[in-house]
Amino acid sequence: MNVITIERKILEKNDEVAIKNRELLSGKKILTINLVSSPGAGKTSLLEKTLEHLKDKIPISIIEGDVQTSIDAERVAKYNVPVVQIVTNGACHLEAKLVQDALGSLDLTKTKLLFIENVGNLVCPAAYDLGEDMKVVIASTTEGDDKPLKYPRMFLNAAVLIINKTDLLPYIDCNADTLKNNALKINPNLIIFETSATTGEGVEKWCRWLEEQISKKK
Amino acid sequence: MNVITIERKILEKNDEVAIKNRELLSGKKILTINLVSSPGAGKTSLLEKTLEHLKDKIPISIIEGDVQTSIDAERVAKYNVPVVQIVTNGACHLEAKLVQDALGSLDLTKTKLLFIENVGNLVCPAAYDLGEDMKVVIASTTEGDDKPLKYPRMFLNAAVLIINKTDLLPYIDCNADTLKNNALKINPNLIIFETSATTGEGVEKWCRWLEEQISKKK
Repeated sequence: MNVITIERKILEKNDEVAIKNRELLSGKKILTINLVSSPGAGKTSLLEKTLEHLKDKIPISIIEGDVQTSIDAERVAKYNVPVVQIVTNGACHLEAKLVQDALGSLDLTKTKLLFIENVGNLVCPAAYDLGEDMKVVIASTTEGDDKPLKYPRMFLNAAVLIINKTDLLPYIDCNADTLKNNALKINPNLIIFETSATTGEGVEKWCRWLEEQISKKK
Repeated sequence: MNVITIERKILEKNDEVAIKNRELLSGKKILTINLVSSPGAGKTSLLEKTLEHLKDKIPISIIEGDVQTSIDAERVAKYNVPVVQIVTNGACHLEAKLVQDALGSLDLTKTKLLFIENVGNLVCPAAYDLGEDMKVVIASTTEGDDKPLKYPRMFLNAAVLIINKTDLLPYIDCNADTLKNNALKINPNLIIFETSATTGEGVEKWCRWLEEQISKKK
């Protein structure tokens, strides 16, 4: 029982900091996206394609979460956007306090769109509010179409699902419609995009939608 | 500090049960494999192919770990092998106590090879000993070749790496040699196999190796 009480306290403490992060970011009219997925589903690749489309139109900042390396931060830094790396040193998710610290290193007056790329993990990050406007979950077609049923909490807590690696559909046993239907069974309110970060297919639609959400903030 | 102490106690308690599981399984000369990977890397598909090769030669039992569903247990049950499903109800990894309970439902006198398919998660299951002989980590080519560097603990704690979905290599930006070298940087003792659970390529070699390990138990 002790353990459960302490876990609850950890989450309560996290939520308190998340509320502060949200107040700060909302006050500055920043659209904040918490990008979540399994390892290798394409969070960083999609972020790169998104930067290609939007970086000259919108001031974007990035917080990169990683267990051990700064590989992803180096990838997105090439696009000349401000990026802060959080290394969790083995922890399986980002927490609001880590994001709060990272926000201190960014010029929020020069940010309209903030991406927080979480640790690659389809389970644990679902439980942690970071103060974002929404979680965007990326599901790779190569993971199969049953993942929303098997990892429901992430799909329930996300506002948007991006089905990525659509270019590989001809070569694999995954039905994109089944994947969509399984996701909508868990969360009927999900907004769904289909993209290939490799070919760029679908990225423009996703970026236009992001621009709309930013314009609503004004 | 309280939290760290309690986390340590959880792991110590887990290790105590894992030791009991290991004693039980070793006493019965059962080769026990803890299968770990990201969601959708192909644990269940590779298990299915392995069952096709070995189920008529070796008495195999399976423990399936899943966050929410019994989809995987139903898939492997088709092969007429004993299978016990553990649903973790949201928890991100299997623990030794859950495996201990599952072992009580299996006829261990009729088992020479036991697969424990862990929850799809490349972070948390690395920290939990279940009493297995070895962790076998499956890395899908579609996840990219940098994953051992980004999620090192899992690759450090595994004895075997299976690079799966080799059939997709022509279509994706992943170099199998780079993946191997990155894994060996983290853990130079890794035994590495390359497989496609779709085409069956490499599965026979993996199964022969399993048979050798089982014969060493006698």
